[in-house]
Amino acid sequence: MNTFGKIFRLTSFGESHGRGVGGIIDGSPSGIPIDPAFIQSELDRRKPGQSRITTQRMEGDQVEFLSGIFEGKTLGTPISFVVWNKDQHSGDYSGLKDIYRPSHADYTYQQKYGFRDYRGGGRSSARETIARVVAGAVAKQILRLKGVEVRAYVSSVHDIEIKKSYKELDLSLTEGNIVRCPDPETAQKMIECIEQAGRDHDTVGGVITGVITGVPPGWGEPVFNKLHADLGFAMLGINAVKGFEYGSGFAGTRMKGSVHNDVFISGEKGIHTLTNHSGGIQGGISNGEDIYFKVAFKPIATLLREQQTVDTSLRQVTINPRGRHDPCVLPRAVPIVESMAALVLVDHYLLQTRNIV
Amino acid sequence: MNTFGKIFRLTSFGESHGRGVGGIIDGSPSGIPIDPAFIQSELDRRKPGQSRITTQRMEGDQVEFLSGIFEGKTLGTPISFVVWNKDQHSGDYSGLKDIYRPSHADYTYQQKYGFRDYRGGGRSSARETIARVVAGAVAKQILRLKGVEVRAYVSSVHDIEIKKSYKELDLSLTEGNIVRCPDPETAQKMIECIEQAGRDHDTVGGVITGVITGVPPGWGEPVFNKLHADLGFAMLGINAVKGFEYGSGFAGTRMKGSVHNDVFISGEKGIHTLTNHSGGIQGGISNGEDIYFKVAFKPIATLLREQQTVDTSLRQVTINPRGRHDPCVLPRAVPIVESMAALVLVDHYLLQTRNIV
Amino acid sequence: MNTFGKIFRLTSFGESHGRGVGGIIDGSPSGIPIDPAFIQSELDRRKPGQSRITTQRMEGDQVEFLSGIFEGKTLGTPISFVVWNKDQHSGDYSGLKDIYRPSHADYTYQQKYGFRDYRGGGRSSARETIARVVAGAVAKQILRLKGVEVRAYVSSVHDIEIKKSYKELDLSLTEGNIVRCPDPETAQKMIECIEQAGRDHDTVGGVITGVITGVPPGWGEPVFNKLHADLGFAMLGINAVKGFEYGSGFAGTRMKGSVHNDVFISGEKGIHTLTNHSGGIQGGISNGEDIYFKVAFKPIATLLREQQTVDTSLRQVTINPRGRHDPCVLPRAVPIVESMAALVLVDHYLLQTRNIV
Amino acid sequence: MNTFGKIFRLTSFGESHGRGVGGIIDGSPSGIPIDPAFIQSELDRRKPGQSRITTQRMEGDQVEFLSGIFEGKTLGTPISFVVWNKDQHSGDYSGLKDIYRPSHADYTYQQKYGFRDYRGGGRSSARETIARVVAGAVAKQILRLKGVEVRAYVSSVHDIEIKKSYKELDLSLTEGNIVRCPDPETAQKMIECIEQAGRDHDTVGGVITGVITGVPPGWGEPVFNKLHADLGFAMLGINAVKGFEYGSGFAGTRMKGSVHNDVFISGEKGIHTLTNHSGGIQGGISNGEDIYFKVAFKPIATLLREQQTVDTSLRQVTINPRGRHDPCVLPRAVPIVESMAALVLVDHYLLQTRNIV
Repeated sequence: MNTFGKIFRLTSFGESHGRGVGGIIDGSPSGIPIDPAFIQSELDRRKPGQSRITTQRMEGDQVEFLSGIFEGKTLGTPISFVVWNKDQHSGDYSGLKDIYRPSHADYTYQQKYGFRDYRGGGRSSARETIARVVAGAVAKQILRLKGVEVRAYVSSVHDIEIKKSYKELDLSLTEGNIVRCPDPETAQKMIECIEQAGRDHDTVGGVITGVITGVPPGWGEPVFNKLHADLGFAMLGINAVKGFEYGSGFAGTRMKGSVHNDVFISGEKGIHTLTNHSGGIQGGISNGEDIYFKVAFKPIATLLREQQTVDTSLRQVTINPRGRHDPCVLPRAVPIVESMAALVLVDHYLLQTRNIV
Repeated sequence: MNTFGKIFRLTSFGESHGRGVGGIIDGSPSGIPIDPAFIQSELDRRKPGQSRITTQRMEGDQVEFLSGIFEGKTLGTPISFVVWNKDQHSGDYSGLKDIYRPSHADYTYQQKYGFRDYRGGGRSSARETIARVVAGAVAKQILRLKGVEVRAYVSSVHDIEIKKSYKELDLSLTEGNIVRCPDPETAQKMIECIEQAGRDHDTVGGVITGVITGVPPGWGEPVFNKLHADLGFAMLGINAVKGFEYGSGFAGTRMKGSVHNDVFISGEKGIHTLTNHSGGIQGGISNGEDIYFKVAFKPIATLLREQQTVDTSLRQVTINPRGRHDPCVLPRAVPIVESMAALVLVDHYLLQTRNIV
Repeated sequence: MNTFGKIFRLTSFGESHGRGVGGIIDGSPSGIPIDPAFIQSELDRRKPGQSRITTQRMEGDQVEFLSGIFEGKTLGTPISFVVWNKDQHSGDYSGLKDIYRPSHADYTYQQKYGFRDYRGGGRSSARETIARVVAGAVAKQILRLKGVEVRAYVSSVHDIEIKKSYKELDLSLTEGNIVRCPDPETAQKMIECIEQAGRDHDTVGGVITGVITGVPPGWGEPVFNKLHADLGFAMLGINAVKGFEYGSGFAGTRMKGSVHNDVFISGEKGIHTLTNHSGGIQGGISNGEDIYFKVAFKPIATLLREQQTVDTSLRQVTINPRGRHDPCVLPRAVPIVESMAALVLVDHYLLQTRNIV
Repeated sequence: MNTFGKIFRLTSFGESHGRGVGGIIDGSPSGIPIDPAFIQSELDRRKPGQSRITTQRMEGDQVEFLSGIFEGKTLGTPISFVVWNKDQHSGDYSGLKDIYRPSHADYTYQQKYGFRDYRGGGRSSARETIARVVAGAVAKQILRLKGVEVRAYVSSVHDIEIKKSYKELDLSLTEGNIVRCPDPETAQKMIECIEQAGRDHDTVGGVITGVITGVPPGWGEPVFNKLHADLGFAMLGINAVKGFEYGSGFAGTRMKGSVHNDVFISGEKGIHTLTNHSGGIQGGISNGEDIYFKVAFKPIATLLREQQTVDTSLRQVTINPRGRHDPCVLPRAVPIVESMAALVLVDHYLLQTRNIV
């Protein structure tokens, strides 16, 4: 169960301390121009060590394509790629072989598989998301040909949040600071919050907002694979995610129907809605308005402080982890959120292609 | 794209005003005893007209099985079933043939398919969820053999919410009132809120909480198909759902890692956690604790009052819908939430079966 | 595992002596005009009792559509249908409850499921192929819009075979006789052979040839899902089939490459090949030439004569089956072969539309 | 569409003259001991240059695993692997950029994708089968834990064939000669035939027989995914295959039912059949007898002689290919046939474990 998508499918592989991580993209249309520099730039947005508020592990994370691209274009055959693991300090983890770290996947992997790669989380490491960012960068290049843009930004860190909606923000400012928050003032507070967490040997979570523009009406499947259901599925599959909402979301449960309904209007550019509580999706299918959603990330579980837990012999033990870890994953998760959204959209674009013979 | 599940698969069919709705369950193990009375009782929890706060449409909704069950047990072959449509007043909808109702799927279906069954929402009607409840009832009977119970209840309606967590409630009280809220005092307020909305020709939304007990450690797939990602996908595919969170959810984004981490303890019954912010799932795999989650439902879009919208010729028109509609779907959505959760769990149970040769 | 197809998917249900057999077609494009009379006429080609050389069981086999068709066109939603079981003499089979009939599926079903519907073969009955013929008839109507025709005929019965290739025959004569052989002289001999087998309380097999015209170059997937691999898979899934070959087939293994290669020529209508040993498929993808293939059917296992076998208690027993059975399935299998081929082709047509941005 | 299998899934990648070929195996159970030497030895049976009757291209074809194996056992996570391309003489192919070689996939790829990697066949090269042999070797190691053995041998080359059935042969002799025919006398004639074809700048085809022993009753899905349908699908997806039959096959169409039926007998080891025209499969499900089948391979299309064809501008041209090619693929195809069969069987083994609560 390591494949994502229906027509445009990513199959991902790799453990954090194995040879590398990567994947195969199957189902890409042929003839799509691929810009390797763009793909690498997306990976660079995800990579560790990119700023003072992320982990200081230095992972070059250069992507190498093994197939499926020829003379700069997709062949229509499987696009395989690998990012080699290089800066692994496997020694850091030898002490954890027999430990179940709190709120990690050590215990559940052991129960599921009877056996696990205990080095740095193995398959449960967020290093796996490299494959998603590479595939997402390919997906973005297809979407751009259709005029679709996928953007995300950090909208809250711990208790610091942007009070404005995405419409009131200049999203081109997102990459202008290391926390990827398009509101510079709030960004500064978020950075301070993350730095304080780091000094406290603690971690903080937050919320990422995603915005998708340019989707024409008609993408999405109306029953189980509603466009927002596939988006939610994609987001909830990202490490540390605890919740997803789109459009009016949980707040919408407190609105009356008479307020929540989006009134259709007819103008020069066809049909639009006066408000957009629907989040660009009605009956599971895009209606041409902006699609927007929020993704909740918990504070990550790796704490550089003493903690109680149990070992594989069920004895109580005390651990005191060392190593280089993010006090907050949000800044690096922004390209992952965008990538997963792009994978969903390109898949629904291809599903919708020629639905009408 | 009308199939749900990987091993245990429901394929659903039916429009609200066609011959009937139903489905095929493929991938059920053989030899499972099936109690038709239980399945019917689940359908009765979903059916319209069951109380004064639901639509007064009277739909008998008797399920008829066509295959896959023999001498009271599953054969291992496809289980097909149908619930015939009976109380349709198609005439109610003829006026809507050329109208795009606000926040409905009329416009998006037209854009997707170029053509639609305009009678009562057709495929976009929540009547489709009948298939999910039947399949969920079969899934529940398999899960009970493994000691797994799936329960849900209404935890908020509009701005009225239960302040207690599921652990502080007696969930056996859920079916004791027509709103399906296990806190009798809050239930009474919810009922009044819904009745007031009905009198106002308005609608209200709310939140349903799901609780799953008895899942052993090891169910779930660690990457894209994390157990909570599949649960979220299932919930977001239900009509009117705007959000999903599990465990600490969105509130967890404001906790520090040092508080959020669930400390493992070792006791007589093996490993447990002192707290359960993880919501019973770590790294996408069940850890043996209770699984709990919340699902946000918007106020439904059908308002029995005058509204502005556009027609298929893009002219502004005023509509004033008549008919029999729910002012609040939450009470009837409880068995749907349970059913979708049961489908996810039985699928992951079967996926995990013999993962170890 | 009762679903066939990737984009255009048939999920089939039903036991021979349950309520009915039928299926759900999911993934049909919307707006396709559907002619119910054509579908029924296809079913009539398959149904028992249609001539003196088929079983004399009279099964009306009227198809009833429950969803997915509105105002004579496909909605793009699931098309579900059922054919009710009517002429079942379950009593005929009560004596077989504890018997494993030779070369039937009784023993293997019991081993697989631990339990079976012993009445008339249950799910293993060729009555299940009704679902394929209905879905195939829908597929044919889509293919005709693209100029693709699928035809099949009986090319051998036991040791009587047409010596000519499909190109030397007038396929419009196929339906002109009860054995569905387009060579009238050979047809007469086949009918006599089948009648003799019936008198002998024996059964005979044979070969059906399929011919597909009008497929443009470019349909098919080049690795596992080669167009001929999907065709072969489809045919081998039909009851009683023992072999499949396309183009030069097994005889091609005795040709030299210098003879077998199909030379390309360029003419007014573009590229063609001088010969067609490739059977219209090169590298798994259609090349625009006719696609042709052969399907081997064994003599069916139900013999109306005394036979030795064992019962479920592993005792040796003698059976002497009664009832109404075909001495030769070939004539009724012609529409089944066509239907399965049509399902494969419409699926690859839709797959190929997804390859174009 | 580059994924094979349902539970145990191989996704394959690679062009003949790209960086490498390989794949990802997803869905393997965890804890399976993996012997890399065995996998390499299987690859060595497939590799070019292994004897005087195969192509003299020297491809080291060393497999490198990137993930999914830890401490010598499968982790249950995706097993990815690559075999780097090394001995490519891309220059050999530059002249073929604008040519459609007869009976190759050049023309059909161009039509499907609008664009192709013209170097050495690209994705249509049989070099892709490396991925299948690696995955098949993993599958074989799982099957051995269940007592299942998969073997294949060359049973005919051009018009030279073994007259004996597999039961009359000593299959341990298969690897004793370079043509992989277990009948030494026939093997010698086959070798001479292939050498003569090489001298004639021609090619020859033939038949490979597969034999699977040790499968317990109950594997296989009874409708579309009959065990033999999946086997046939697997075989027909191998390059150059034109036909598949199992058990009595095409010859069985000329037998009477009274002869063809396999009589059940009950003995010390349970139920067996006196004959095995069923080929070990009844109703699509294994019955515990040996499974055997035949696969027809055409003479390959690459001829080292002058031939007429057309180019991409639709002009008639003469080509005269050079290079190092096999006059007969049969000897190297034996491990490919075994591998595809092993993939099918391990998948059905895992499917069947999901049928048991």
